Amino acid sequence: MLKYFQITRYKNSSEKKLAQSIKNLFGFYPKNISLFQQALTHSSAAKHSKSNERLEFLGDSILGTIVAEYLFGILPNKDEGVLTQVRSRMVSRVQLNKLAVKLGIDKILHTDIKGNISYALYGDAFEALVGAICLDIGYEKTKKIVVEKIIKQHFDINTLINEDTDYKSRLINFCQKNKMPLQFILLSENMDGVKKIYHIGIELNGEIIAEAQNASKRVAEQLAANAALEKLDILS
Amino acid sequence: MLKYFQITRYKNSSEKKLAQSIKNLFGFYPKNISLFQQALTHSSAAKHSKSNERLEFLGDSILGTIVAEYLFGILPNKDEGVLTQVRSRMVSRVQLNKLAVKLGIDKILHTDIKGNISYALYGDAFEALVGAICLDIGYEKTKKIVVEKIIKQHFDINTLINEDTDYKSRLINFCQKNKMPLQFILLSENMDGVKKIYHIGIELNGEIIAEAQNASKRVAEQLAANAALEKLDILS
Repeated sequence: MLKYFQITRYKNSSEKKLAQSIKNLFGFYPKNISLFQQALTHSSAAKHSKSNERLEFLGDSILGTIVAEYLFGILPNKDEGVLTQVRSRMVSRVQLNKLAVKLGIDKILHTDIKGNISYALYGDAFEALVGAICLDIGYEKTKKIVVEKIIKQHFDINTLINEDTDYKSRLINFCQKNKMPLQFILLSENMDGVKKIYHIGIELNGEIIAEAQNASKRVAEQLAANAALEKLDILS
Repeated sequence: MLKYFQITRYKNSSEKKLAQSIKNLFGFYPKNISLFQQALTHSSAAKHSKSNERLEFLGDSILGTIVAEYLFGILPNKDEGVLTQVRSRMVSRVQLNKLAVKLGIDKILHTDIKGNISYALYGDAFEALVGAICLDIGYEKTKKIVVEKIIKQHFDINTLINEDTDYKSRLINFCQKNKMPLQFILLSENMDGVKKIYHIGIELNGEIIAEAQNASKRVAEQLAANAALEKLDILS
């Protein structure tokens, strides 16, 4: 009855269809459907409406905070370096792009691009959807949905935790096996205001293929190694 | 009466004193005082208790999201590049360190450091306090407190908005006036997964003094110029 009432609040069949997709994905009918229309509108298709870029800015931050809160709670004995690494792995571009396609966001995103569409558009749209959800129903409910419908369904935290410190070793092993000359390079060691920031690059066959920055040199190396493994497409 | 009741819930005079500081700073008496003790314990003084580093990880993310939500709401016509820049300026290390001292966090932080204490410790402790507040009373109430007690009291958003696009010009003008050879250098143009990330360095007198990364080259230049201005200590 509630469901019937709610689905009839939408103006037309296109709104109803979108509302049903949101319900299927996240378990609720949106109050403000226009937020979700915007979240699913890439700038290429945003001629008469707003694109999803502002919502992506918001959703990127909200998603990072939800993951931070979640990891803080379930990993009470891990230090902030581990939390940073696990979160970075969970919200990496590659991970979010894959997740977005798994959720079927590629099928509901509006674009006006001829030819091949970069998967990044889907990850961006997923972030924009998180922003739209938060504006529609607030942070606490969004957190619940992201934890229950996304994190618990699509991430194996145990695997992520056990993988958390061995990106550097995995990269070294892979390169040794494949006889690829590998170097971890300290690109810079700058002060960000008053804090030292280590900027590590991964050089493979003479080319910098990935980089990362962190206040801890060890964490920066792990983040850079993680990015390199993702780029080489050898992360399980 | 309520105040009296609440202040008497704490075990000893040190807890009462801290609870009063939190009330003066943020307008409420903490439920879980140990979170705030931890937030104000630097790793150097954390022999028998936990340090504030995990809370700093959490608070850094929460603060960024609160600022993102706030800017999203009050700047409906600004694009995500402007939002990114204004936020970056608000939560920069230099800004947070200054803010923390203004709030008097330097007087209540526990450290065991001999000699000069880096101001970064105070900014870190402020972030850890935001993490503690969120765990104590939830995100929505934390947002209200940060917006009312911090952002509205200590940030002039109009100035920040008007300043938002001219860091590059200001840096160029400053360097021309002072006859300092300045260069914006594209350090790399890497793919972060499938998205292009521009990495801009600011070279002054032959040395890279600041850098930043962004998917927009224009925004990366502005962020790097902002960091350079902060380092040169010529931001008003």
